[in-house]
Amino acid sequence: MTDTAPLRLGIAGLGTVGIGVVKIIRRQAALLQDRAGRPVVITAVSARSKDKDRGVDLSDYAWEDDPVALAKRDDIDVFVELMGGHEGPAKDACEAAIATGKDIVTANKALLAHHGQELALAAEEAGVRIRYEAAVAGGIPIIKSLLEGLAGNEITRVMGVMNGTCNYILTQMQATGRGYNALFEECAELGYLEADPNLDVGGIDAGHKLSILSSIAFGTQVNFDAVELEGIQRIQLEDIEHAAEMGFRIKLLGVAQMTGRGLEQRMSPCLVPASSPLGQLEGGTNMVVVEGDAVEQVVLRGPGAGEGPTASAVMGDVMDIARGISIPTFGQPASTLRPVTGAKAAKPAPFYLRMSLLDKPGAMAKVAAVLGDAGVSINRMRQTSHDEKLAPVLVVTHKCTRDALDAALKGFAETGVVDGDPVAIRIEEL
Amino acid sequence: MTDTAPLRLGIAGLGTVGIGVVKIIRRQAALLQDRAGRPVVITAVSARSKDKDRGVDLSDYAWEDDPVALAKRDDIDVFVELMGGHEGPAKDACEAAIATGKDIVTANKALLAHHGQELALAAEEAGVRIRYEAAVAGGIPIIKSLLEGLAGNEITRVMGVMNGTCNYILTQMQATGRGYNALFEECAELGYLEADPNLDVGGIDAGHKLSILSSIAFGTQVNFDAVELEGIQRIQLEDIEHAAEMGFRIKLLGVAQMTGRGLEQRMSPCLVPASSPLGQLEGGTNMVVVEGDAVEQVVLRGPGAGEGPTASAVMGDVMDIARGISIPTFGQPASTLRPVTGAKAAKPAPFYLRMSLLDKPGAMAKVAAVLGDAGVSINRMRQTSHDEKLAPVLVVTHKCTRDALDAALKGFAETGVVDGDPVAIRIEEL
Ligand SMILES: NC(=O)c1ccc[n+]([C@@H]2O[C@H](COP(=O)([O-])OP(=O)(O)OC[C@H]3O[C@@H](n4cnc5c(N)ncnc54)[C@H](OP(=O)(O)O)[C@@H]3O)[C@@H](O)[C@H]2O)c1
Ligand SMILES: NC(=O)c1ccc[n+]([C@@H]2O[C@H](COP(=O)([O-])OP(=O)(O)OC[C@H]3O[C@@H](n4cnc5c(N)ncnc54)[C@H](OP(=O)(O)O)[C@@H]3O)[C@@H](O)[C@H]2O)c1
Repeated sequence: MTDTAPLRLGIAGLGTVGIGVVKIIRRQAALLQDRAGRPVVITAVSARSKDKDRGVDLSDYAWEDDPVALAKRDDIDVFVELMGGHEGPAKDACEAAIATGKDIVTANKALLAHHGQELALAAEEAGVRIRYEAAVAGGIPIIKSLLEGLAGNEITRVMGVMNGTCNYILTQMQATGRGYNALFEECAELGYLEADPNLDVGGIDAGHKLSILSSIAFGTQVNFDAVELEGIQRIQLEDIEHAAEMGFRIKLLGVAQMTGRGLEQRMSPCLVPASSPLGQLEGGTNMVVVEGDAVEQVVLRGPGAGEGPTASAVMGDVMDIARGISIPTFGQPASTLRPVTGAKAAKPAPFYLRMSLLDKPGAMAKVAAVLGDAGVSINRMRQTSHDEKLAPVLVVTHKCTRDALDAALKGFAETGVVDGDPVAIRIEEL
Repeated sequence: MTDTAPLRLGIAGLGTVGIGVVKIIRRQAALLQDRAGRPVVITAVSARSKDKDRGVDLSDYAWEDDPVALAKRDDIDVFVELMGGHEGPAKDACEAAIATGKDIVTANKALLAHHGQELALAAEEAGVRIRYEAAVAGGIPIIKSLLEGLAGNEITRVMGVMNGTCNYILTQMQATGRGYNALFEECAELGYLEADPNLDVGGIDAGHKLSILSSIAFGTQVNFDAVELEGIQRIQLEDIEHAAEMGFRIKLLGVAQMTGRGLEQRMSPCLVPASSPLGQLEGGTNMVVVEGDAVEQVVLRGPGAGEGPTASAVMGDVMDIARGISIPTFGQPASTLRPVTGAKAAKPAPFYLRMSLLDKPGAMAKVAAVLGDAGVSINRMRQTSHDEKLAPVLVVTHKCTRDALDAALKGFAETGVVDGDPVAIRIEEL
């Protein structure tokens, strides 16, 4: 049943994650062999520049300039894609790997969010595996837990804080009283931001991850376009402070659940209780909460990125392949995954609203009237002191639907007394 | 590669967990089939009394009075052992299952803690699987995470709060100011305690679980006898209160780590920071912390017991078998697991000590001298007010080795001024 020949890897991408994987394979060769029942070896590698000093000796491995050529080599069993990007070389090389019968291990959430379904179908047809533990929540074994450990559950909800940079910015705003812009600059200097920072602060990276979890949880085709995305760029220090006064923290939280109208997937700032596990999550740590009909609630927490943790996840996948573990990419055959349309949040929730009112008579009354007309009732409302022409107003609503809230937001624009777009943050029930 | 014939289960034990499993298989037949690529069906069941109303219709399943006969039936593929007990029918039936080529799924930590190595060897020889996700930390997929998801790591430490009843008692003492005895009685009435309550409050059940985790983490033979066990029976309200004043909580915490002198496994009350994830764990919830050379630290949290969560874990194993996933019982061939001797905690730690001094002149000085002679230095020391002949004394030490502490404890006995055995609780570094 078990294969004892060496499992031969071709690794494309020798950056943070790729070098982390090389280090583990060199450092733990004996342990990996004990556990896999066979050696795990690297045959060939690829990156952009051959001559870069990467701090590890790569001379034992064949070099390919072209990751597609690497994927096609007949002396590798597994193509390990650690380059990134959802088009171009990563996609081309994965397709080449599938076409030439190689299993794939990747950390590339963008690739799977955009092309997960077509790649899974192709892999299935070719009889090869695609594994991607490292693509979601770094070192946390969440993909395996959802795919396998919790496979006896009908999943009812998946939630997660899955972008360490956003969580770092938000927790540092809270802890230090520094503003969003200052922390954004700090992250840029520390190298915490992607080349396109909107991937992080715009919620796109975390949205990619959520769309992957949704597919496994609900047996649906990955549908990143159906994720309602909202970034953290508009969160101001005063929002953090008001939230804290009320016993909340603001997190960039992903929530996925199946509704009668379709799959609800949203990645947006939310208020969560300060005393909850999600509320207490600090810095770059990630957390995923899975709720199922049998298991109730399981919470997994760990480092969301970094060389060691991400390489640990990649190696989990490699070890599974070495051990002959084979299940469909998203837990059931890709051909049986259902296409889904996106659904707006169906469950009513309270919302936090912050807006600026022009200093005109009757402005507050107009705002209150708009809320009333939309069927949104007010829990608290407060106009804070001001010297300027604009008066900052905070509202916490009672539970209302997203539709009702959107009607109110539209109504505000028509009053002529609300300056710009109000900030609306859902208060999430945990 | 994949088998599409129905996977046929024989379930022995129709109590809390067994009935939970039957319910999932009836409720989620279609979902399980989608995910496994084959139907998962129950062929036969066994329990003590055939006529008991168990709230579910069992008439479709063959009945066996004798679990050994069930295990031997040739119309089952998997023997699901949910009776409990480390000798007698559970062990006999598992041996019969192995002898007749059936895979085994069990929730029985006592059985594995006592006979894990011999069962794993027998299973390996017979080419069958033993899976036991439900045996440790209920619904948390910790066995799978350690065995598979984190298989690329050299594990450096495993810690866990894994007995819900003890955690309930300790957190209720803290929350309500009620004493240990009152809460013990309450647990007895609520049915939270095992038939032999010492399994819970004596730390034995949690120690069983720790010994299983150790085997996977360190590639060693399960060695429950090497677990240093200490229960929560001697923890008093004043300990909880003093700990809280210093910013700590008391938890029945398991810790396993490999040392130069052998495998350190201890299950004992510990002080942990109140603000840490372990410190915040309330009621019956379990938590396991895994530290590895690559992943750093992963924390898993979830319900440690109960019908749904435990059945969820059993079903995770059943689904793995249905999907053809096969790895050695403890992650590497049982014949390659190393025997280990137990090692006392090697790392120095601060300790909390509470003792009663006889009201004799120079008593405090004698205690201080014993500590000094043993090389244990004092961080704080306090004698609380008293009317009685006995003066309660609290000491928090600086970091010292367990050996030094034991020397001091021995020394106290010889002073003639210390009444009874002092309570000594390690302050665990997280
Ligand atoms: N970093 C993390 O903590 C983390 C966490 C989870 C997931 N991920 C994912 O893991 C993947 C890799 O991330 P990373 O942080 O390791 O990236 P990185 O440090 O930027 O490394 C990327 C590597 O890919 C190589 N590469 C890029 N384009 C190439 C091409 N056309 N042909 C050959 N090689 C090419 C680069 O070569 P040169 O070195 O020669 O430039 C570099 O070695 C991404 O999908 C990312 O989203 C990363
Ligand atoms: N309960 C939990 O939350 C939980 C959590 C984790 C692990 N576990 C483990 O799961 C196992 C089962 O626990 P449980 O709580 O479900 O126990 P339980 O409610 O006491 O049920 C035990 C079942 O086994 C049957 N049984 C006992 N001796 C038998 C024998 N000689 N022959 C045939 N059937 C026999 C009993 O039959 P009758 O019903 O006819 O008496 C009963 O149906 C134990 O190993 C336990 O440690 C339990």
